[in-house]
Amino acid sequence: MNIKEYLAEKKAVIDAALDEILPAEDVKPQTIHKAMRYSVFAGGKRLRPILVMASAEAVGGKGNDVLPAACALEMIHSYSLIHDDLPAMDDDDYRRGMLTNHKVFGEAMAILAGDALLTHAFYVLSHCLKYFPAESVNQVVGEVSKAAGTFGMVGGQVVDIESEGKDISREELDYIHENKTAALFVASVRTGGILAGANSVQMDALTDYARHLGLAFQITDDILDITGDSGKLGKNTGSDTRKKKVTFPLLYGLEESRKMALDESRKAGEIVRTLGNRAKPLEEIVLYLVSRDF
Amino acid sequence: MNIKEYLAEKKAVIDAALDEILPAEDVKPQTIHKAMRYSVFAGGKRLRPILVMASAEAVGGKGNDVLPAACALEMIHSYSLIHDDLPAMDDDDYRRGMLTNHKVFGEAMAILAGDALLTHAFYVLSHCLKYFPAESVNQVVGEVSKAAGTFGMVGGQVVDIESEGKDISREELDYIHENKTAALFVASVRTGGILAGANSVQMDALTDYARHLGLAFQITDDILDITGDSGKLGKNTGSDTRKKKVTFPLLYGLEESRKMALDESRKAGEIVRTLGNRAKPLEEIVLYLVSRDF
Repeated sequence: MNIKEYLAEKKAVIDAALDEILPAEDVKPQTIHKAMRYSVFAGGKRLRPILVMASAEAVGGKGNDVLPAACALEMIHSYSLIHDDLPAMDDDDYRRGMLTNHKVFGEAMAILAGDALLTHAFYVLSHCLKYFPAESVNQVVGEVSKAAGTFGMVGGQVVDIESEGKDISREELDYIHENKTAALFVASVRTGGILAGANSVQMDALTDYARHLGLAFQITDDILDITGDSGKLGKNTGSDTRKKKVTFPLLYGLEESRKMALDESRKAGEIVRTLGNRAKPLEEIVLYLVSRDF
Repeated sequence: MNIKEYLAEKKAVIDAALDEILPAEDVKPQTIHKAMRYSVFAGGKRLRPILVMASAEAVGGKGNDVLPAACALEMIHSYSLIHDDLPAMDDDDYRRGMLTNHKVFGEAMAILAGDALLTHAFYVLSHCLKYFPAESVNQVVGEVSKAAGTFGMVGGQVVDIESEGKDISREELDYIHENKTAALFVASVRTGGILAGANSVQMDALTDYARHLGLAFQITDDILDITGDSGKLGKNTGSDTRKKKVTFPLLYGLEESRKMALDESRKAGEIVRTLGNRAKPLEEIVLYLVSRDF
Protein backbone atom coordinates (compact mmCIF):
# COMPACT_ATOMS: atom_id res chain seq x y z
CA MET A 1 0.00 0.00 0.00
CA ASN A 2 0.98 3.62 -0.56
CA ILE A 3 0.66 5.25 2.85
CA LYS A 4 0.96 8.81 1.52
CA GLU A 5 -2.02 8.23 -0.77
CA TYR A 6 -3.97 6.57 2.03
CA LEU A 7 -3.36 9.53 4.36
CA ALA A 8 -4.22 12.08 1.66
CA GLU A 9 -7.49 10.29 0.83
CA LYS A 10 -8.52 10.08 4.46
CA LYS A 11 -7.58 13.70 5.07
CA ALA A 12 -9.80 14.82 2.20
CA VAL A 13 -12.77 12.87 3.55
CA ILE A 14 -12.20 14.20 7.07
CA ASP A 15 -11.84 17.80 5.90
CA ALA A 16 -15.14 17.54 4.05
CA ALA A 17 -16.85 16.06 7.11
CA LEU A 18 -15.44 18.75 9.40
CA ASP A 19 -16.74 21.39 7.01
CA GLU A 20 -20.19 19.88 7.28
CA ILE A 21 -20.10 19.36 11.05
CA LEU A 22 -18.85 22.83 12.04
CA PRO A 23 -21.41 25.67 11.94
CA ALA A 24 -20.93 27.87 8.85
CA GLU A 25 -19.19 31.23 9.14
CA ASP A 26 -22.38 33.15 8.37
CA VAL A 27 -24.36 31.50 11.16
CA LYS A 28 -24.86 33.70 14.22
CA PRO A 29 -22.75 34.38 16.26
CA GLN A 30 -20.46 34.63 13.23
CA THR A 31 -17.22 35.59 15.01
CA ILE A 32 -16.99 32.43 17.06
CA HIS A 33 -17.79 30.17 14.13
CA LYS A 34 -15.10 31.95 12.09
CA ALA A 35 -12.63 31.51 14.96
CA MET A 36 -13.46 27.80 15.34
CA ARG A 37 -13.08 27.16 11.62
CA TYR A 38 -9.89 29.22 11.38
CA SER A 39 -8.01 26.86 13.68
CA VAL A 40 -9.61 23.62 12.56
CA PHE A 41 -8.72 24.42 8.94
CA ALA A 42 -5.26 25.86 9.67
CA GLY A 43 -3.54 22.76 8.37
CA GLY A 44 -2.80 19.73 10.46
CA LYS A 45 -2.18 16.12 9.57
CA ARG A 46 -5.61 14.89 10.82
CA LEU A 47 -3.70 12.15 12.58
CA ARG A 48 -6.24 11.51 15.34
CA PRO A 49 -9.31 11.23 13.10
CA ILE A 50 -7.33 9.05 10.68
CA LEU A 51 -6.50 6.76 13.61
CA VAL A 52 -10.20 6.54 14.50
CA MET A 53 -11.04 5.49 10.95
CA ALA A 54 -8.06 3.16 10.44
CA SER A 55 -8.77 1.45 13.79
CA ALA A 56 -12.40 0.86 12.90
CA GLU A 57 -11.26 -0.63 9.57
CA ALA A 58 -8.57 -2.72 11.30
CA VAL A 59 -11.27 -4.64 13.20
CA GLY A 60 -13.68 -4.97 10.28
CA GLY A 61 -15.71 -1.76 10.56
CA LYS A 62 -16.30 0.93 7.95
CA GLY A 63 -14.14 4.04 8.22
CA ASN A 64 -16.84 6.33 6.88
CA ASP A 65 -19.32 5.20 9.54
CA VAL A 66 -17.07 6.58 12.28
CA LEU A 67 -16.39 9.89 10.49
CA PRO A 68 -18.40 12.08 12.92
CA ALA A 69 -16.60 10.54 15.90
CA ALA A 70 -13.30 11.02 14.08
CA CYS A 71 -14.13 14.70 13.60
CA ALA A 72 -14.94 15.02 17.31
CA LEU A 73 -11.43 13.84 18.19
CA GLU A 74 -9.93 16.39 15.78
CA MET A 75 -12.02 19.19 17.33
CA ILE A 76 -10.72 18.28 20.79
CA HIS A 77 -7.15 18.31 19.46
CA SER A 78 -7.81 21.67 17.84
CA TYR A 79 -9.27 23.18 21.04
CA SER A 80 -6.19 22.04 22.98
CA LEU A 81 -3.86 23.78 20.52
CA ILE A 82 -5.82 27.05 20.68
CA HIS A 83 -5.67 27.11 24.50
CA ASP A 84 -2.01 25.93 24.59
CA ASP A 85 -1.01 28.85 22.36
CA LEU A 86 -2.63 31.52 24.59
CA PRO A 87 -0.38 34.20 26.14
CA ALA A 88 -1.06 32.76 29.61
CA MET A 89 0.13 29.33 28.42
CA ASP A 90 2.85 28.85 25.75
CA ASP A 91 2.34 32.33 24.28
CA ASP A 92 2.92 31.32 20.67
CA ASP A 93 2.24 33.69 17.78
CA TYR A 94 2.47 31.12 15.00
CA ARG A 95 1.39 27.56 14.43
CA ARG A 96 1.78 25.65 11.19
CA GLY A 97 3.02 28.87 9.60
CA MET A 98 -0.17 30.80 10.41
CA LEU A 99 -0.98 33.31 13.14
CA THR A 100 -2.41 31.61 16.22
CA ASN A 101 -6.10 32.01 17.01
CA HIS A 102 -5.72 34.74 19.65
CA LYS A 103 -3.45 36.77 17.36
CA VAL A 104 -6.27 36.91 14.81
CA PHE A 105 -9.43 36.95 16.95
CA GLY A 106 -8.17 38.24 20.30
CA GLU A 107 -7.76 36.37 23.56
CA ALA A 108 -11.39 36.35 24.66
CA MET A 109 -12.59 34.87 21.39
CA ALA A 110 -9.74 32.32 21.33
CA ILE A 111 -10.67 31.08 24.80
CA LEU A 112 -14.31 30.81 23.73
CA ALA A 113 -13.44 29.15 20.40
CA GLY A 114 -11.54 26.47 22.32
CA ASP A 115 -14.42 26.04 24.75
CA ALA A 116 -16.87 25.80 21.87
CA LEU A 117 -14.83 23.19 19.96
CA LEU A 118 -14.57 21.00 23.06
CA THR A 119 -18.31 21.36 23.68
CA HIS A 120 -19.21 20.73 20.04
CA ALA A 121 -17.10 17.57 20.05
CA PHE A 122 -19.40 16.04 22.66
CA TYR A 123 -22.45 17.24 20.75
CA VAL A 124 -21.17 15.47 17.64
CA LEU A 125 -20.29 12.30 19.58
CA SER A 126 -23.77 12.15 21.10
CA HIS A 127 -25.22 12.28 17.60
CA CYS A 128 -23.25 9.27 16.33
CA LEU A 129 -26.29 7.07 16.81
CA LYS A 130 -27.11 6.53 13.16
CA TYR A 131 -24.93 3.45 12.90
CA PHE A 132 -24.18 2.48 16.49
CA PRO A 133 -25.99 1.37 19.66
CA ALA A 134 -26.43 4.01 22.38
CA GLU A 135 -24.29 1.95 24.78
CA SER A 136 -21.28 2.19 22.47
CA VAL A 137 -21.73 5.91 21.94
CA ASN A 138 -21.93 6.37 25.69
CA GLN A 139 -18.75 4.41 26.23
CA VAL A 140 -17.00 6.62 23.68
CA VAL A 141 -18.19 9.81 25.43
CA GLY A 142 -16.87 8.36 28.70
CA GLU A 143 -13.47 7.34 27.33
CA VAL A 144 -12.90 10.50 25.30
CA SER A 145 -13.87 12.80 28.20
CA LYS A 146 -11.52 10.92 30.51
CA ALA A 147 -8.66 11.10 28.00
CA ALA A 148 -9.22 14.84 27.51
CA GLY A 149 -9.47 15.69 31.23
CA THR A 150 -7.18 15.84 34.25
CA PHE A 151 -6.38 12.11 33.96
CA GLY A 152 -5.33 12.70 30.38
CA MET A 153 -4.57 15.68 28.16
CA VAL A 154 -5.29 18.51 30.61
CA GLY A 155 -3.39 16.67 33.37
CA GLY A 156 -0.35 16.33 31.10
CA GLN A 157 -0.51 20.02 30.19
CA VAL A 158 -0.68 20.99 33.88
CA VAL A 159 2.45 19.00 34.78
CA ASP A 160 4.18 20.25 31.61
CA ILE A 161 3.57 23.87 32.63
CA GLU A 162 4.66 23.21 36.21
CA SER A 163 7.86 21.49 35.03
CA GLU A 164 9.17 24.29 32.81
CA GLY A 165 12.66 25.34 33.85
CA LYS A 166 12.91 22.49 36.37
CA ASP A 167 14.98 19.32 36.34
CA ILE A 168 12.54 16.47 35.91
CA SER A 169 12.96 12.71 35.94
CA ARG A 170 12.27 10.25 33.13
CA GLU A 171 9.15 9.19 35.08
CA GLU A 172 7.86 12.76 35.08
CA LEU A 173 8.64 13.16 31.37
CA ASP A 174 6.77 9.92 30.67
CA TYR A 175 3.81 11.15 32.70
CA ILE A 176 3.63 14.34 30.66
CA HIS A 177 3.77 12.54 27.31
CA GLU A 178 1.47 9.70 28.25
CA ASN A 179 -1.16 12.21 29.29
CA LYS A 180 -0.60 15.27 27.12
CA THR A 181 -0.09 13.39 23.85
CA ALA A 182 -0.64 9.64 24.06
CA ALA A 183 -3.99 9.71 25.92
CA LEU A 184 -5.81 11.26 22.96
CA PHE A 185 -4.14 8.83 20.53
CA VAL A 186 -5.33 5.97 22.73
CA ALA A 187 -8.83 7.47 22.88
CA SER A 188 -8.80 7.79 19.07
CA VAL A 189 -7.99 4.14 18.35
CA ARG A 190 -10.35 2.96 21.09
CA THR A 191 -13.18 5.11 19.68
CA GLY A 192 -12.74 3.41 16.32
CA GLY A 193 -12.55 0.02 18.02
CA ILE A 194 -15.56 0.49 20.27
CA LEU A 195 -17.82 1.76 17.50
CA ALA A 196 -16.72 -1.00 15.12
CA GLY A 197 -17.48 -3.61 17.77
CA ALA A 198 -13.92 -4.81 18.48
CA ASN A 199 -13.49 -7.68 20.94
CA SER A 200 -11.33 -7.31 24.04
CA VAL A 201 -8.22 -8.82 22.45
CA GLN A 202 -8.49 -6.39 19.56
CA MET A 203 -9.12 -3.48 21.94
CA ASP A 204 -5.99 -4.36 23.92
CA ALA A 205 -3.90 -4.50 20.76
CA LEU A 206 -5.21 -1.12 19.55
CA THR A 207 -4.56 0.43 22.97
CA ASP A 208 -0.96 -0.86 23.19
CA TYR A 209 -0.34 0.22 19.63
CA ALA A 210 -1.48 3.77 20.38
CA ARG A 211 0.72 4.01 23.50
CA HIS A 212 3.83 3.11 21.52
CA LEU A 213 2.75 5.35 18.65
CA GLY A 214 2.27 8.23 21.11
CA LEU A 215 5.77 7.83 22.45
CA ALA A 216 7.30 7.47 18.98
CA PHE A 217 5.42 10.58 17.88
CA GLN A 218 6.57 12.62 20.87
CA ILE A 219 10.24 11.62 20.63
CA THR A 220 10.17 12.52 16.93
CA ASP A 221 8.58 15.87 17.79
CA ASP A 222 11.35 16.58 20.30
CA ILE A 223 14.02 15.65 17.73
CA LEU A 224 12.44 17.83 15.04
CA ASP A 225 12.37 20.78 17.43
CA ILE A 226 16.20 20.60 17.33
CA THR A 227 17.01 19.33 13.84
CA GLY A 228 13.91 20.30 11.89
CA ASP A 229 13.40 22.88 9.15
CA SER A 230 11.18 25.64 10.57
CA GLY A 231 9.76 26.24 7.07
CA LYS A 232 8.54 22.66 6.76
CA LEU A 233 7.38 22.49 10.37
CA GLY A 234 5.50 25.80 10.13
CA LYS A 235 6.83 26.91 13.49
CA ASN A 236 10.09 28.08 14.97
CA THR A 237 12.46 25.31 15.99
CA GLY A 238 14.35 25.45 19.27
CA SER A 239 11.26 26.46 21.25
CA ASP A 240 11.71 23.59 23.74
CA THR A 241 15.21 24.85 24.55
CA ARG A 242 13.99 28.43 24.91
CA LYS A 243 11.18 27.33 27.22
CA LYS A 244 13.64 25.14 29.14
CA LYS A 245 11.53 22.06 28.54
CA VAL A 246 13.00 18.68 29.34
CA THR A 247 12.98 16.59 26.15
CA PHE A 248 14.16 13.17 25.04
CA PRO A 249 17.24 14.53 23.19
CA LEU A 250 18.16 16.50 26.32
CA LEU A 251 17.96 13.39 28.49
CA TYR A 252 19.42 10.83 26.05
CA GLY A 253 21.09 12.70 23.21
CA LEU A 254 19.95 12.80 19.56
CA GLU A 255 21.28 9.43 18.43
CA GLU A 256 19.80 7.48 21.33
CA SER A 257 16.48 9.36 20.92
CA ARG A 258 16.32 8.38 17.25
CA LYS A 259 16.85 4.75 18.22
CA MET A 260 14.13 5.01 20.86
CA ALA A 261 11.63 6.44 18.36
CA LEU A 262 12.38 3.65 15.87
CA ASP A 263 12.15 1.06 18.63
CA GLU A 264 8.74 2.35 19.74
CA SER A 265 7.46 2.41 16.16
CA ARG A 266 8.69 -1.17 15.66
CA LYS A 267 6.86 -2.30 18.80
CA ALA A 268 3.68 -0.54 17.66
CA GLY A 269 3.97 -2.27 14.29
CA GLU A 270 4.47 -5.71 15.81
CA ILE A 271 1.43 -5.36 18.07
CA VAL A 272 -0.86 -4.19 15.32
CA ARG A 273 0.23 -6.96 12.93
CA THR A 274 -1.61 -9.40 15.22
CA LEU A 275 -4.83 -7.82 13.92
CA GLY A 276 -4.13 -9.08 10.40
CA ASN A 277 -4.01 -7.46 6.97
CA ARG A 278 -6.75 -4.93 7.59
CA ALA A 279 -4.43 -3.27 10.13
CA LYS A 280 -1.73 -2.57 7.54
CA PRO A 281 -2.49 1.19 7.43
CA LEU A 282 -1.97 1.44 11.21
CA GLU A 283 1.43 -0.20 10.84
CA GLU A 284 2.41 2.11 8.00
CA ILE A 285 1.18 5.23 9.82
CA VAL A 286 3.59 4.81 12.73
CA LEU A 287 6.55 4.14 10.39
CA TYR A 288 5.61 7.22 8.41
CA LEU A 289 5.41 9.36 11.55
CA VAL A 290 8.91 8.58 12.81
CA SER A 291 10.46 9.20 9.38
CA ARG A 292 8.70 12.54 8.80
CA ASP A 293 10.57 15.85 8.63
CA PHE A 294 7.51 18.09 9.28
CA MET B 1 -43.89 23.94 51.87
CA ASN B 2 -40.91 25.91 53.13
CA ILE B 3 -38.85 26.73 50.06
CA LYS B 4 -35.82 27.91 52.05
CA GLU B 5 -35.62 24.55 53.81
CA TYR B 6 -36.14 22.71 50.53
CA LEU B 7 -33.32 24.62 48.86
CA ALA B 8 -30.97 24.14 51.85
CA GLU B 9 -31.63 20.39 51.93
CA LYS B 10 -31.02 20.00 48.21
CA LYS B 11 -27.89 22.15 48.38
CA ALA B 12 -26.44 19.92 51.10
CA VAL B 13 -27.06 16.78 49.07
CA ILE B 14 -25.59 18.37 45.93
CA ASP B 15 -22.49 19.65 47.77
CA ALA B 16 -21.84 16.16 49.13
CA ALA B 17 -22.25 14.64 45.66
CA LEU B 18 -19.93 17.22 44.07
CA ASP B 19 -17.34 16.42 46.72
CA GLU B 20 -17.53 12.77 45.73
CA ILE B 21 -17.56 13.36 41.98
CA LEU B 22 -14.63 15.80 41.80
CA PRO B 23 -11.13 14.31 42.08
CA ALA B 24 -9.65 14.92 45.56
CA GLU B 25 -7.06 17.66 46.09
CA ASP B 26 -4.29 15.17 46.79
CA VAL B 27 -4.80 13.29 43.52
CA LYS B 28 -2.18 14.07 40.85
CA PRO B 29 -2.02 16.61 39.27
CA GLN B 30 -2.95 18.29 42.55
CA THR B 31 -2.95 21.93 41.40
CA ILE B 32 -5.70 21.50 38.85
CA HIS B 33 -7.90 19.52 41.22
CA LYS B 34 -7.44 22.22 43.85
CA ALA B 35 -8.32 24.88 41.30
CA MET B 36 -11.44 23.00 40.15
CA ARG B 37 -12.64 22.50 43.71
CA TYR B 38 -11.85 26.07 44.71
CA SER B 39 -14.40 27.48 42.28
CA VAL B 40 -17.01 24.76 42.60
CA PHE B 41 -17.02 25.20 46.39
CA ALA B 42 -16.77 29.00 46.37
CA GLY B 43 -20.42 29.37 47.30
CA GLY B 44 -23.23 29.49 44.80
CA LYS B 45 -26.92 28.74 45.10
CA ARG B 46 -26.71 25.38 43.24
CA LEU B 47 -29.70 26.60 41.27
CA ARG B 48 -29.07 24.53 38.13
CA PRO B 49 -28.58 21.18 39.89
CA ILE B 50 -31.59 21.90 42.12
CA LEU B 51 -33.63 22.48 38.95
CA VAL B 52 -32.45 19.12 37.57
CA MET B 53 -33.60 17.35 40.74
CA ALA B 54 -36.85 19.30 41.18
CA SER B 55 -37.77 18.70 37.54
CA ALA B 56 -37.19 14.97 37.83
CA GLU B 57 -39.40 14.97 40.95
CA ALA B 58 -42.04 17.11 39.23
CA VAL B 59 -42.65 14.34 36.70
CA GLY B 60 -42.52 11.47 39.18
CA GLY B 61 -38.80 10.64 39.24
CA LYS B 62 -36.44 10.48 42.19
CA GLY B 63 -34.24 13.54 42.77
CA ASN B 64 -31.33 11.50 44.13
CA ASP B 65 -31.21 9.31 41.02
CA VAL B 66 -30.36 12.34 38.88
CA LEU B 67 -27.72 13.71 41.29
CA PRO B 68 -24.70 12.95 39.06
CA ALA B 69 -26.36 14.68 36.11
CA ALA B 70 -27.29 17.58 38.41
CA CYS B 71 -23.61 17.89 39.41
CA ALA B 72 -22.58 17.91 35.75
CA LEU B 73 -24.78 20.96 35.13
CA GLU B 74 -23.22 22.74 38.12
CA MET B 75 -19.70 21.96 36.84
CA ILE B 76 -20.56 23.50 33.47
CA HIS B 77 -21.92 26.59 35.22
CA SER B 78 -18.76 26.76 37.33
CA TYR B 79 -16.46 26.46 34.29
CA SER B 80 -18.33 29.30 32.58
CA LEU B 81 -17.82 31.59 35.59
CA ILE B 82 -14.07 30.83 35.76
CA HIS B 83 -13.60 31.67 32.08
CA ASP B 84 -15.94 34.71 32.24
CA ASP B 85 -13.84 36.19 35.07
CA LEU B 86 -10.52 35.92 33.16
CA PRO B 87 -8.59 39.13 32.41
CA ALA B 88 -9.27 38.67 28.69
CA MET B 89 -13.02 38.46 29.38
CA ASP B 90 -14.74 40.37 32.25
CA ASP B 91 -11.50 40.75 34.24
CA ASP B 92 -13.11 40.31 37.66
CA ASP B 93 -11.02 39.93 40.82
CA TYR B 94 -13.84 38.83 43.10
CA ARG B 95 -16.87 36.58 42.87
CA ARG B 96 -19.18 35.74 45.76
CA GLY B 97 -16.81 37.63 48.07
CA MET B 98 -13.82 35.44 47.18
CA LEU B 99 -10.87 35.96 44.87
CA THR B 100 -11.57 34.65 41.38
CA ASN B 101 -9.82 31.49 40.20
CA HIS B 102 -7.08 33.18 38.17
CA LYS B 103 -6.25 35.53 41.06
CA VAL B 104 -5.49 32.49 43.21
CA PHE B 105 -4.09 29.95 40.72
CA GLY B 106 -2.90 32.14 37.85
CA GLU B 107 -4.38 32.52 34.38
CA ALA B 108 -3.01 29.32 32.85
CA MET B 109 -4.40 27.14 35.63
CA ALA B 110 -7.75 28.98 35.58
CA ILE B 111 -8.14 28.35 31.85
CA LEU B 112 -7.28 24.67 32.38
CA ALA B 113 -9.55 24.37 35.44
CA GLY B 114 -12.45 25.62 33.34
CA ASP B 115 -11.55 23.24 30.51
CA ALA B 116 -11.31 20.37 32.98
CA LEU B 117 -14.68 21.09 34.63
CA LEU B 118 -16.40 21.19 31.25
CA THR B 119 -14.72 17.94 30.24
CA HIS B 120 -15.45 16.24 33.56
CA ALA B 121 -19.12 17.21 33.26
CA PHE B 122 -19.43 15.04 30.15
CA TYR B 123 -17.51 12.25 31.83
CA VAL B 124 -19.98 12.31 34.71
CA LEU B 125 -22.98 12.48 32.36
CA SER B 126 -21.74 9.47 30.42
CA HIS B 127 -21.58 7.51 33.69
CA CYS B 128 -25.22 8.18 34.63
CA LEU B 129 -26.16 4.74 33.39
CA LYS B 130 -26.85 3.14 36.77
CA TYR B 131 -30.50 4.15 36.74
CA PHE B 132 -31.19 5.17 33.14
CA PRO B 133 -31.20 3.71 29.63
CA ALA B 134 -28.24 4.62 27.40
CA GLU B 135 -30.60 6.37 24.95
CA SER B 136 -31.70 8.86 27.64
CA VAL B 137 -28.14 9.52 28.76
CA ASN B 138 -27.18 10.14 25.15
CA GLN B 139 -30.03 12.57 24.67
CA VAL B 140 -28.89 14.45 27.78
CA VAL B 141 -25.29 14.67 26.48
CA GLY B 142 -26.68 16.03 23.20
CA GLU B 143 -28.97 18.62 24.80
CA VAL B 144 -26.47 19.79 27.41
CA SER B 145 -23.64 20.15 24.88
CA LYS B 146 -25.90 22.14 22.57
CA ALA B 147 -27.03 24.41 25.42
CA ALA B 148 -23.42 25.00 26.48
CA GLY B 149 -22.07 25.70 22.99
CA THR B 150 -22.34 28.41 20.36
CA PHE B 151 -26.10 27.94 20.06
CA GLY B 152 -26.38 28.46 23.81
CA MET B 153 -24.15 29.70 26.60
CA VAL B 154 -20.96 30.37 24.61
CA GLY B 155 -22.98 32.04 21.86
CA GLY B 156 -24.61 34.38 24.40
CA GLN B 157 -21.23 35.23 25.90
CA VAL B 158 -19.82 36.04 22.46
CA VAL B 159 -22.62 38.48 21.62
CA ASP B 160 -22.44 39.93 25.15
CA ILE B 161 -18.73 40.69 24.74
CA GLU B 162 -19.27 42.12 21.28
CA SER B 163 -22.11 44.35 22.53
CA GLU B 164 -20.22 46.07 25.36
CA GLY B 165 -20.30 49.83 24.97
CA LYS B 166 -22.73 49.62 22.05
CA ASP B 167 -26.39 50.53 21.77
CA ILE B 168 -28.27 47.27 21.34
CA SER B 169 -31.90 46.49 20.71
CA ARG B 170 -34.31 44.57 22.92
CA GLU B 171 -33.99 41.68 20.43
CA GLU B 172 -30.23 41.61 20.92
CA LEU B 173 -30.59 41.77 24.71
CA ASP B 174 -33.07 38.90 24.57
CA TYR B 175 -30.65 36.89 22.43
CA ILE B 176 -27.87 37.36 24.98
CA HIS B 177 -30.02 36.33 27.93
CA GLU B 178 -31.76 33.44 26.20
CA ASN B 179 -28.40 31.99 25.31
CA LYS B 180 -26.02 33.08 28.03
CA THR B 181 -28.36 32.38 30.94
CA ALA B 182 -31.63 30.71 30.00
CA ALA B 183 -30.19 27.96 27.78
CA LEU B 184 -28.49 26.21 30.72
CA PHE B 185 -31.64 26.56 32.86
CA VAL B 186 -33.61 24.95 30.05
CA ALA B 187 -30.99 22.19 29.73
CA SER B 188 -31.20 21.63 33.51
CA VAL B 189 -34.96 21.09 33.66
CA ARG B 190 -34.90 19.02 30.48
CA THR B 191 -32.12 16.82 31.87
CA GLY B 192 -34.28 16.09 34.91
CA GLY B 193 -37.28 15.49 32.68
CA ILE B 194 -35.52 13.23 30.17
CA LEU B 195 -33.92 11.02 32.83
CA ALA B 196 -37.17 10.76 34.78
CA GLY B 197 -39.00 9.69 31.64
CA ALA B 198 -41.24 12.75 31.18
CA ASN B 199 -43.74 12.66 28.33
CA SER B 200 -43.75 15.36 25.64
CA VAL B 201 -46.44 17.49 27.31
CA GLN B 202 -44.42 17.50 30.53
CA MET B 203 -41.20 18.26 28.65
CA ASP B 204 -42.84 21.25 26.96
CA ALA B 205 -44.09 22.60 30.28
CA LEU B 206 -40.65 22.22 31.89
CA THR B 207 -39.01 23.93 28.92
CA ASP B 208 -41.41 26.91 28.92
CA TYR B 209 -41.07 27.19 32.69
CA ALA B 210 -37.27 27.41 32.43
CA ARG B 211 -37.40 30.07 29.71
CA HIS B 212 -39.55 32.35 31.87
CA LEU B 213 -37.47 31.53 34.94
CA GLY B 214 -34.31 32.43 33.02
CA LEU B 215 -35.71 35.81 32.06
CA ALA B 216 -37.01 36.51 35.58
CA PHE B 217 -33.60 35.54 36.97
CA GLN B 218 -31.70 37.78 34.56
CA ILE B 219 -33.91 40.84 35.07
CA THR B 220 -33.52 40.40 38.85
CA ASP B 221 -29.75 40.13 38.42
CA ASP B 222 -29.71 43.37 36.44
CA ILE B 223 -31.81 45.12 39.12
CA LEU B 224 -29.58 43.87 41.96
CA ASP B 225 -26.50 45.15 40.14
CA ILE B 226 -27.99 48.64 40.69
CA THR B 227 -29.89 48.37 43.97
CA GLY B 228 -28.18 45.44 45.68
CA ASP B 229 -25.96 45.29 48.75
CA SER B 230 -22.47 44.33 47.58
CA GLY B 231 -21.87 42.58 50.93
CA LYS B 232 -24.84 40.26 50.42
CA LEU B 233 -24.12 39.79 46.72
CA GLY B 234 -20.43 39.04 47.32
CA LYS B 235 -19.41 41.22 44.38
CA ASN B 236 -19.26 44.90 43.58
CA THR B 237 -22.51 46.40 42.37
CA GLY B 238 -22.61 48.80 39.45
CA SER B 239 -20.37 46.60 37.31
CA ASP B 240 -22.86 46.56 34.41
CA THR B 241 -22.79 50.37 34.29
CA ARG B 242 -18.98 50.44 34.43
CA LYS B 243 -18.77 47.89 31.63
CA LYS B 244 -21.41 49.82 29.68
CA LYS B 245 -23.62 46.77 29.41
CA VAL B 246 -27.16 47.21 28.22
CA THR B 247 -29.50 45.94 30.94
CA PHE B 248 -33.24 45.78 31.56
CA PRO B 249 -33.26 48.74 34.00
CA LEU B 250 -31.33 50.80 31.44
CA LEU B 251 -33.89 50.00 28.72
CA TYR B 252 -37.08 50.11 30.83
CA GLY B 253 -36.27 51.75 34.17
CA LEU B 254 -36.24 50.05 37.59
CA GLU B 255 -39.99 50.03 38.25
CA GLU B 256 -40.93 48.56 34.90
CA SER B 257 -38.11 46.00 35.20
CA ARG B 258 -39.43 44.87 38.59
CA LYS B 259 -42.87 44.40 37.04
CA MET B 260 -41.36 42.42 34.19
CA ALA B 261 -39.50 40.10 36.55
CA LEU B 262 -42.67 39.46 38.55
CA ASP B 263 -44.65 38.93 35.40
CA GLU B 264 -42.15 36.35 34.10
CA SER B 265 -42.13 34.53 37.44
CA ARG B 266 -45.93 34.45 37.43
CA LYS B 267 -45.97 32.96 33.94
CA ALA B 268 -43.40 30.36 34.97
CA GLY B 269 -45.52 29.46 37.98
CA GLU B 270 -48.71 29.12 35.93
CA ILE B 271 -47.05 26.82 33.42
CA VAL B 272 -45.53 24.55 36.01
CA ARG B 273 -48.79 24.26 37.98
CA THR B 274 -50.14 22.19 35.09
CA LEU B 275 -47.74 19.44 36.24
CA GLY B 276 -49.59 19.08 39.53
CA ASN B 277 -48.56 19.09 43.18
CA ARG B 278 -45.19 17.45 42.68
CA ALA B 279 -44.11 20.58 40.80
CA LYS B 280 -44.72 22.86 43.79
CA PRO B 281 -40.98 23.34 44.47
CA LEU B 282 -40.43 24.57 40.88
CA GLU B 283 -43.19 27.13 41.39
CA GLU B 284 -41.73 28.29 44.69
CA ILE B 285 -38.17 28.46 43.33
CA VAL B 286 -39.01 31.08 40.74
CA LEU B 287 -40.93 33.22 43.23
CA TYR B 288 -38.01 32.97 45.62
CA LEU B 289 -35.54 34.00 42.92
CA VAL B 290 -37.29 37.24 41.99
CA SER B 291 -37.69 38.27 45.65
CA ARG B 292 -34.04 37.61 46.60
CA ASP B 293 -31.63 40.33 47.61
CA PHE B 294 -28.42 38.30 47.05
